[in-house]
Amino acid sequence: MFVLGLDPGLTAAGYGIIESHGTGFRAVAAGAITTAPDMPVALRLLEIHRDLSALIAEYQPTSAAIEQVFVNRNLQTATAVSRASGVALLALAQADLAVAEYSPSAVKMALCGYGNAPKEQMQRVVAMRLGLSVAPSPADAADALAVALCHAQHIPMRRAVEQNG
Amino acid sequence: MFVLGLDPGLTAAGYGIIESHGTGFRAVAAGAITTAPDMPVALRLLEIHRDLSALIAEYQPTSAAIEQVFVNRNLQTATAVSRASGVALLALAQADLAVAEYSPSAVKMALCGYGNAPKEQMQRVVAMRLGLSVAPSPADAADALAVALCHAQHIPMRRAVEQNG
Repeated sequence: MFVLGLDPGLTAAGYGIIESHGTGFRAVAAGAITTAPDMPVALRLLEIHRDLSALIAEYQPTSAAIEQVFVNRNLQTATAVSRASGVALLALAQADLAVAEYSPSAVKMALCGYGNAPKEQMQRVVAMRLGLSVAPSPADAADALAVALCHAQHIPMRRAVEQNG
Repeated sequence: MFVLGLDPGLTAAGYGIIESHGTGFRAVAAGAITTAPDMPVALRLLEIHRDLSALIAEYQPTSAAIEQVFVNRNLQTATAVSRASGVALLALAQADLAVAEYSPSAVKMALCGYGNAPKEQMQRVVAMRLGLSVAPSPADAADALAVALCHAQHIPMRRAVEQNG
C-alpha cells in the first residue's frame, strides 16, 4: 500500500511516497515539482497539476495526505501556496483518491512527539523511520515524506474510528 | 470576441461572459458555480474545475480575467478562495487561455472611476454598461461581469503596450 504525502507550494511542491512493510516503512519516491518564478501563475499551476497527475498515475497510491497552509504566513505567500494546494487536491480528486489534511504542528507531533520540533529534528526522524542514512533532500521532499508518515500512522486509528462510528 | 470574467470562490464561483459589439458590450452568460459546504474540499474543487472547463468549451472565450484574492480577508477565507482560484487558473491554462488579474479596487476604478465604490453602485454600472434593466444576480455573477468589463476596457491598452514594447 503506497501512501502519498504532499507539501504544496508554487515554487516547489514536495512529494513523498512511502510503503508500509511488516515492521515499518520504506521510501518509494520523493522529490519536488519546481516551477520558474518568472512564468505566469496559471502555467506554473498547469505544470504542478500535470506532474502530480503523472506521479499518481505512475505510483497508484491508495491513500494521500497534504500539509495545511501554515497560518503564520503572509497573505501573498498563503495565496500562492493555497493555489498550488488547490490544483494538488484537484489532481487527487480526479484520481478518486481521498485526502487527509494535517497542520504542520500535527505532523511534528506525530513524528517527534511535540508540535514545535525544529525542522532538523523532523528530518532526522524521517530519515530514521524510513531507514535512510541521510535526510532526504530537498527539504520539501523531506516535509512531504513526513506528511506521508504522519498519515500512515493515523490510518489504523482512522479505520478503527470509522468502524466504530 | 467573448471575454470571460471570474470572481473565484469555493462556495460560489461567479462567472460572466460578455461580447463587444460596435458601440459597447452585451452579456452572453453569467451565473455562479456553487458547491456544498459539507462536501470534502477536494470534491468541491473538482466540481468547480469541471463546470468551468465545460463553460470554456461551450463559449470558447478568447480572453479571460480573474479577480485577485482580497487582501483584507482572513486567512481561512483567503485559503478557500485561493484554492478555487487555483483550479480556475488551471482550467484557463488547460484551454490555452491567457488570464489577466485585477484587484477588486482596480475593477471598481475601471467601472465607477474610483477604487472604493460601494457594491450597489458597481452593480448598477454593470447593468447599465450591458444594457440590462436590472442588476445581474447572484452578486457573484455581477462581480464576474464587472471583471470581464474591466478587462475588455483594458484590452486595447494592453495591445498597444505590447505592440510598442
